[in-house]
Amino acid sequence: MAKKIGVLTSGGDAPGMNAAVRAVCRAGLAKGMEVVGILRGYNGLLNGEVIEMNARTVSGIIQRGGTCLYTARCPEFRDIEGVKKGRDKCLEMGLDGIVVIGGDGSFRGAADLSAQGIPCIGLPGTIDNDISCTEYTIGYDTAMNTAMEMIDKIRDTAQSHDRCSVVEVMGRNAGHIAINVAAAVGAEAVITPEKPYDLNAIAQKMEQTKKSGKTHFIIVVAEGVGKTEYITRTLQDITGVESRATILGHVQRGGSPTVRDRVVATEMGYHAVELLEQGIGNRVVGMKDNKIYDVDIQEALSMKKPFEEELYKILNETAF
Amino acid sequence: MAKKIGVLTSGGDAPGMNAAVRAVCRAGLAKGMEVVGILRGYNGLLNGEVIEMNARTVSGIIQRGGTCLYTARCPEFRDIEGVKKGRDKCLEMGLDGIVVIGGDGSFRGAADLSAQGIPCIGLPGTIDNDISCTEYTIGYDTAMNTAMEMIDKIRDTAQSHDRCSVVEVMGRNAGHIAINVAAAVGAEAVITPEKPYDLNAIAQKMEQTKKSGKTHFIIVVAEGVGKTEYITRTLQDITGVESRATILGHVQRGGSPTVRDRVVATEMGYHAVELLEQGIGNRVVGMKDNKIYDVDIQEALSMKKPFEEELYKILNETAF
Amino acid sequence: MAKKIGVLTSGGDAPGMNAAVRAVCRAGLAKGMEVVGILRGYNGLLNGEVIEMNARTVSGIIQRGGTCLYTARCPEFRDIEGVKKGRDKCLEMGLDGIVVIGGDGSFRGAADLSAQGIPCIGLPGTIDNDISCTEYTIGYDTAMNTAMEMIDKIRDTAQSHDRCSVVEVMGRNAGHIAINVAAAVGAEAVITPEKPYDLNAIAQKMEQTKKSGKTHFIIVVAEGVGKTEYITRTLQDITGVESRATILGHVQRGGSPTVRDRVVATEMGYHAVELLEQGIGNRVVGMKDNKIYDVDIQEALSMKKPFEEELYKILNETAF
Amino acid sequence: MAKKIGVLTSGGDAPGMNAAVRAVCRAGLAKGMEVVGILRGYNGLLNGEVIEMNARTVSGIIQRGGTCLYTARCPEFRDIEGVKKGRDKCLEMGLDGIVVIGGDGSFRGAADLSAQGIPCIGLPGTIDNDISCTEYTIGYDTAMNTAMEMIDKIRDTAQSHDRCSVVEVMGRNAGHIAINVAAAVGAEAVITPEKPYDLNAIAQKMEQTKKSGKTHFIIVVAEGVGKTEYITRTLQDITGVESRATILGHVQRGGSPTVRDRVVATEMGYHAVELLEQGIGNRVVGMKDNKIYDVDIQEALSMKKPFEEELYKILNETAF
Repeated sequence: MAKKIGVLTSGGDAPGMNAAVRAVCRAGLAKGMEVVGILRGYNGLLNGEVIEMNARTVSGIIQRGGTCLYTARCPEFRDIEGVKKGRDKCLEMGLDGIVVIGGDGSFRGAADLSAQGIPCIGLPGTIDNDISCTEYTIGYDTAMNTAMEMIDKIRDTAQSHDRCSVVEVMGRNAGHIAINVAAAVGAEAVITPEKPYDLNAIAQKMEQTKKSGKTHFIIVVAEGVGKTEYITRTLQDITGVESRATILGHVQRGGSPTVRDRVVATEMGYHAVELLEQGIGNRVVGMKDNKIYDVDIQEALSMKKPFEEELYKILNETAF
Repeated sequence: MAKKIGVLTSGGDAPGMNAAVRAVCRAGLAKGMEVVGILRGYNGLLNGEVIEMNARTVSGIIQRGGTCLYTARCPEFRDIEGVKKGRDKCLEMGLDGIVVIGGDGSFRGAADLSAQGIPCIGLPGTIDNDISCTEYTIGYDTAMNTAMEMIDKIRDTAQSHDRCSVVEVMGRNAGHIAINVAAAVGAEAVITPEKPYDLNAIAQKMEQTKKSGKTHFIIVVAEGVGKTEYITRTLQDITGVESRATILGHVQRGGSPTVRDRVVATEMGYHAVELLEQGIGNRVVGMKDNKIYDVDIQEALSMKKPFEEELYKILNETAF
Repeated sequence: MAKKIGVLTSGGDAPGMNAAVRAVCRAGLAKGMEVVGILRGYNGLLNGEVIEMNARTVSGIIQRGGTCLYTARCPEFRDIEGVKKGRDKCLEMGLDGIVVIGGDGSFRGAADLSAQGIPCIGLPGTIDNDISCTEYTIGYDTAMNTAMEMIDKIRDTAQSHDRCSVVEVMGRNAGHIAINVAAAVGAEAVITPEKPYDLNAIAQKMEQTKKSGKTHFIIVVAEGVGKTEYITRTLQDITGVESRATILGHVQRGGSPTVRDRVVATEMGYHAVELLEQGIGNRVVGMKDNKIYDVDIQEALSMKKPFEEELYKILNETAF
Repeated sequence: MAKKIGVLTSGGDAPGMNAAVRAVCRAGLAKGMEVVGILRGYNGLLNGEVIEMNARTVSGIIQRGGTCLYTARCPEFRDIEGVKKGRDKCLEMGLDGIVVIGGDGSFRGAADLSAQGIPCIGLPGTIDNDISCTEYTIGYDTAMNTAMEMIDKIRDTAQSHDRCSVVEVMGRNAGHIAINVAAAVGAEAVITPEKPYDLNAIAQKMEQTKKSGKTHFIIVVAEGVGKTEYITRTLQDITGVESRATILGHVQRGGSPTVRDRVVATEMGYHAVELLEQGIGNRVVGMKDNKIYDVDIQEALSMKKPFEEELYKILNETAF
């Protein structure tokens, strides 16, 4: 049974990471454990950059974006030597387990460290929702709402000027943010990495809806597709509708987390500590059928995430 | 197969109702149907207050709070005479089906009208998430985020003055909003209608955490509990911590819907039209295991909604 | 010339106070001074509750509501004995001057302490904009925007239900918030302490505009008028329009400050330090003709603030 | 005395334009005039694209971004022939005057049309605050707050990753948005078109503050400077701090206007109608010493706007 645990955030930051850190800390303390915060991902473990945590350490962080533990990549931890050094540090500090909040790359490190005898639990923290073993990742809801609110504003100016706005949203190689945000803003079309696209067909649809009275257009493009400037110029050239490209960028990563991100982070953080309490490691906590569950890390990493075919169909059928 | 359908909103308004109306309208048009909007709930059906809808009618409404079809209670529709009059109006207008967006009361009307030969589909639209057949109701996410953002602001002043803020959130007889918002703001305690509460125990916990350095407190009270002023005074009397009550009120019902409310409304609206397309009525569309599904209205009305025991436990265990 | 200065916040908290604290701290450091933060208003001075400040102490506070120095009333400081004790504490700590962020009551203390030989500068920090010597007080803009955004949400539900919403906004005995917010939301009427009001006339106007097609109404009531429940019932009784009262409450005091509050706080804080640098005390910093200026505290306290007659006229003439 | 007036929006859209349109419409109606809305700037005048307005036409627009009258450039109106055609259209429609909401280019058209005997009043509507005759332009406050809120979010991720974020804000050839937003977010440095800049000096300051414990940096760059990618790379090369560029883009033009934009728009719109009521044309309404005033258009166009030297100084002195 774990007596002392650590928590770290790794990879890109995401809103709700602080809520997860808080939950891990509080759940650990509630169960009589000592809890330490490990700074800057696995680097802090290797360098001994850790802070003691009590209930007050995590006061007032649940509503903050970013991560109070900082985050960074740690190339050294990709090698077995780095992992062994990490294990030694854990033994030295008396750490009986670690909660790792991050993405697939971070989970690999957690699996490696678990294999060395330090139970590690992964929590899915990324705005991109591109982790296969879970329906939901911490930060996803906030990022989508931020993107949506920005596009709602862009619509004001697109509408005033009878323009087409082509907006690139984040999501790395996945179209989850793009497709949901496109549905939420009532976009004319969405272009995602998972599906082929045909700019001529989009242009044709624009011209058709123009005849029915529509004077402005929103096209959402996923980061994984890119070419936003090219898409914009091409649509303008074909349709003659003045078109503008906007890349929403890093704004989408920050901001105070939504209810959903804070609550899911709290539930996942708590569940992670329950696992460590029982000495269980090498698991990722995820959401399945709207419920918190956990799964073996190797199994998690080999899963494939289905594309939201139904929403994609609805969007294409009803955008006119 | 339906050739002409109507859509109405009934009961309390909720953010996302417009997104649902839009989805019903667009899905109907995409499937070659005529679509009419029925104003002010069942009243508009009885009075013939209906508007023809095309793709432009629902332009620019997806991001708006409230309902562009207005809403109202309709006592006349509770009697079989009213329902029969409604059926006659449908026949007169050539309506082959109706999508009813609202709560349990509205679904009863939809069942009655279905029994009279007009297929009706219910969509769960209420901020309270108090409909048993579905994990999620349209408007719930927006209302929770609005409440949370308001409490985040109240915290600023509670903290500056070393105060306790007791905040009443909506939710009618259910504690769903209260418990999730309490978790999201890191409240010291939550008081919901589903569970007994002990002000002495809460006060004791406040005094204990005060010793560990906490100087301000947030207590969330569900509307169904009420007595917010009394709770505030009592906590102040026991603990000596200056305490203030705030009732968040109708602000929680309005505002631009979140991504989740817009997307779920879109999916549910589309699914409702698919059912009507096949001539199916007397169903409620809901969410189960995070997926859209439908269920018989009578069955839906007899279900019981489970309380969020796990989140309640986490909240109580980790608030200190 | 001042070598070491203190800064405190007193009275009700207001968004932007942190920006002012930050500006005082940074300006002081930039000018080679030592700077201390005095906690919980004048209490901290009397109890020696002070913290050393450096550039990092005020990192990341400019965007936060509330005050990181906490605030409280201090009855002891109303007597000359308390003031003398405060002076002795200043001498003991080597404080050559203090910046006091608060309202008229706080300025009286600043004047008294100045008279005892410790130069004090007042900065107007209150959401109510009820300080006569200045066109603008720190926190006013944020509070108005918060109130406006809440009423914009209330409008969604008022409109959906064909209702009248009577909304009470803060402002203590002044109608500044009320009248500006009423203009900003396009209210049907505003009721402020500075002007008599006639509920029959308001009801009559409602009935008139109803004839021109208006179906919902917003009435803004200033806190200093109160009786919001009574006004609501009376308007409903006369007009027959279903009416609801909402008291916006403490939400208006919190939240991240607007650009205006942050910038004005920065400018005023800087100016206050410039005065102390020259050994000048007993002044309030204010805004006049849109420019930062300073004025003798006694003179400031004897001024009278004009009512916004022009905006009041416009509002009444164009609300129909 | 004017019996029938028109209102149009021209140039780039700005939040608050709708509030100004509403004020012009309502003030005109209150004074017994007929009011028409002219669509898409001067084009609507030349093409007869006008709509009759009543009190309900402008219902629910005060809180919307963009302009309900649409906007567009009109090259034809730059020639005397176009202006004469505009005058003929005014005579044909019986228009006794026009309120033109836009920027300097739009005012030139207003002056030309006034010279042809149709009194025109200009209202300053642009987010850039780059109109010399006025301290304030409609849309400025909203744009700054939007930019600030986005940078507050970017800060979360900059801080979590120990990065430098270089953010380009709008403002055309002027640094007003940049300097105020930089002050509001506590930026390390601001680069504006009005002042020379030295990337080596900025980098040196970054390194210095890094020694005092600062780990992340925000640099604000005005659109008129551009080269944001180059600046970012250069700062990264010199300091070794990982740096990212973000161009905030068109999001800044949209969104629901702030209190200040709505209220100033209302006051300016009302004042414009008062002038037309007296048969006065060829004036721009502006703000001077925080008060609404009006000035001859030619005089307005020849003015020069002072740079905010004081705020620039404060920012540079206190950013460390």
